[in-house]
Amino acid sequence: DPNLKVFSLNSNRKLAAEIANVIGVELGKCSVTRFSDGEIQINIEESIRGCDVYVIQSTSSPVNEHLMELLIMIDALKRASAKTINIVMPYYGYARQDRKARAREPITAKLAANLLETAGATRVITLDLHAPQIQGFFDIPIDHLMGVPILSDYFKNKMMDGDIVIVSPDHGGVTRARKMADRLKAPIAIIDKRRPKPNVAEVMNIVGNIDGKTAILIDDIIDTAGTITLAANALIENGASEVYACCTHPVLSGPAIERIENSTIKELVVTNSITLPEEKKTDKIVELSVAPLIGEAIIRVHEEQSVSTLFD
Amino acid sequence: DPNLKVFSLNSNRKLAAEIANVIGVELGKCSVTRFSDGEIQINIEESIRGCDVYVIQSTSSPVNEHLMELLIMIDALKRASAKTINIVMPYYGYARQDRKARAREPITAKLAANLLETAGATRVITLDLHAPQIQGFFDIPIDHLMGVPILSDYFKNKMMDGDIVIVSPDHGGVTRARKMADRLKAPIAIIDKRRPKPNVAEVMNIVGNIDGKTAILIDDIIDTAGTITLAANALIENGASEVYACCTHPVLSGPAIERIENSTIKELVVTNSITLPEEKKTDKIVELSVAPLIGEAIIRVHEEQSVSTLFD
Ligand SMILES: Nc1ncnc2c1ncn2[C@@H]1O[C@H](COP(=O)(O)O)[C@@H](O)[C@H]1O
Ligand SMILES: Nc1ncnc2c1ncn2[C@@H]1O[C@H](COP(=O)(O)O)[C@@H](O)[C@H]1O
Repeated sequence: DPNLKVFSLNSNRKLAAEIANVIGVELGKCSVTRFSDGEIQINIEESIRGCDVYVIQSTSSPVNEHLMELLIMIDALKRASAKTINIVMPYYGYARQDRKARAREPITAKLAANLLETAGATRVITLDLHAPQIQGFFDIPIDHLMGVPILSDYFKNKMMDGDIVIVSPDHGGVTRARKMADRLKAPIAIIDKRRPKPNVAEVMNIVGNIDGKTAILIDDIIDTAGTITLAANALIENGASEVYACCTHPVLSGPAIERIENSTIKELVVTNSITLPEEKKTDKIVELSVAPLIGEAIIRVHEEQSVSTLFD
Repeated sequence: DPNLKVFSLNSNRKLAAEIANVIGVELGKCSVTRFSDGEIQINIEESIRGCDVYVIQSTSSPVNEHLMELLIMIDALKRASAKTINIVMPYYGYARQDRKARAREPITAKLAANLLETAGATRVITLDLHAPQIQGFFDIPIDHLMGVPILSDYFKNKMMDGDIVIVSPDHGGVTRARKMADRLKAPIAIIDKRRPKPNVAEVMNIVGNIDGKTAILIDDIIDTAGTITLAANALIENGASEVYACCTHPVLSGPAIERIENSTIKELVVTNSITLPEEKKTDKIVELSVAPLIGEAIIRVHEEQSVSTLFD
């Protein structure tokens, strides 16, 4: 369909090329550079008048640069008479700032939603929002894809010794662990952190049977990797035979890579929702592509079919 | 008035302190930092419920960081029940992207206006917009201050030998040069660039009498300093005895400082609408403060008096 156009900005160029390949289109021609003073300069180099445009851009680090690229691209597409402007954000930055946890905090996840709509986005396709409630921050349609099937399939296809248990590193992630456990027909366990008294170190209690088992820790985001590496150590200390970890969004900032390398985690499985720079690639990290999932989602959205059946 | 609060973000902390001093208030307590992954973290550390809040922030380089700081701060203030949220932007970034000069360009100056309003700004105070039409991009009140009086007063107070002529480096700046000339009771001249044929070097023709005179070049923004240094050389070659240059907004990106140092410009006079980092400060550059102007403007806005009389 000549009316379907896919453009990539700067966050995920390799993933965007893979997605275009899955769909069977060429990426749209567009340059996204900087003026001498650092202001973003966008040149869309082909007509998109009347087209359904899909823009691939995660608001991963540097988040403010990537978000502004996206907003300016939407503005340019709108003024160039695109019919629909569909934002494909494999990783939705600022998702953790989704409520006022303390007085006078911003809710930046909602602000970002408002900014995207104000710029002119007409639909959002995203993956594993930190809180599914963020869907409600938008007044335009949003398709929420899931990373669990991709991560689960990897472990299903991998020959693994012994019994498996899926472990949530905190209370907030139990639903996600349950979904993975269903797919792998495995039981779940939960790392139950609590602080006995103020200013006393947290105690890591494990709810569920992990003894002699292969534990698979699952989270949505791994950022500084503090939680996940402490969890892995606690699992080994409490009798797990080996520990794998996986997540959809490898933010991996600050000490993350060093912590993972020095941890008891055998392998960390992630998706390419966030581009891993070369210096963060290690032998322990396995990267799975979300291109087949997102490509299929774009085709279905474009053909006005249901996206939810992607997870059956 | 305890209901008047002034906050500074990261672009112009020194100027903000000077402005608070002019007004006679303490700067509001607020930290603007980064999470480990580069996301902006803002903590407003005092109640602003029911207050008229003024936020000082130029969207100078790094423009996307500074703009996002501002938007997130506005969001936080709005949710913390500020009565009014007044944005003081001595320098308005992206102002040069104010029209579609080519097909499929964004109009980022308008996008920025929409983003500020969406976040919750209720008023804007700014200085020397690249195009005064940008005022019309806002649906909220905007006060547009002028740098010309400050720059003119500097030259008025400076003992200068011989006759003065105010020079516009291009056609777009003649109105500004005329305003300065009125204040200094001097004539004007214009650098009239034209390209005789495509792919032939530009010819710099000077309209007006500069022979044996002290020329003062005036522009709103000096960015890479190509235009202004070529103009200075042309003035000297055509008989000016010496050349000063001045502008409101010292963007000074890329080769700017080197070009100015190696040019025939005797002195470059700028304002602190954009903070000059230490490595850009040279003996040729004189910095004037806009704190008295902006401080007075804030007092008048707060007391619901006219700001335009500031220029009489
Ligand atoms: N980029 C970030 N890095 C670390 N913490 C964050 C970030 N953004 C927000 N937060 C904090 O993380 C908390 C929410 O995380 P969670 O409890 O996992 O939903 C809030 O207290 C936020 O202030
Ligand atoms: N940050 C920037 N640096 C250099 N040129 C710019 C910048 N932003 C916009 N422009 C271009 O500058 C031109 C407008 O400048 P002007 O003719 O002086 O109003 C347009 O063609 C823009 O594409």
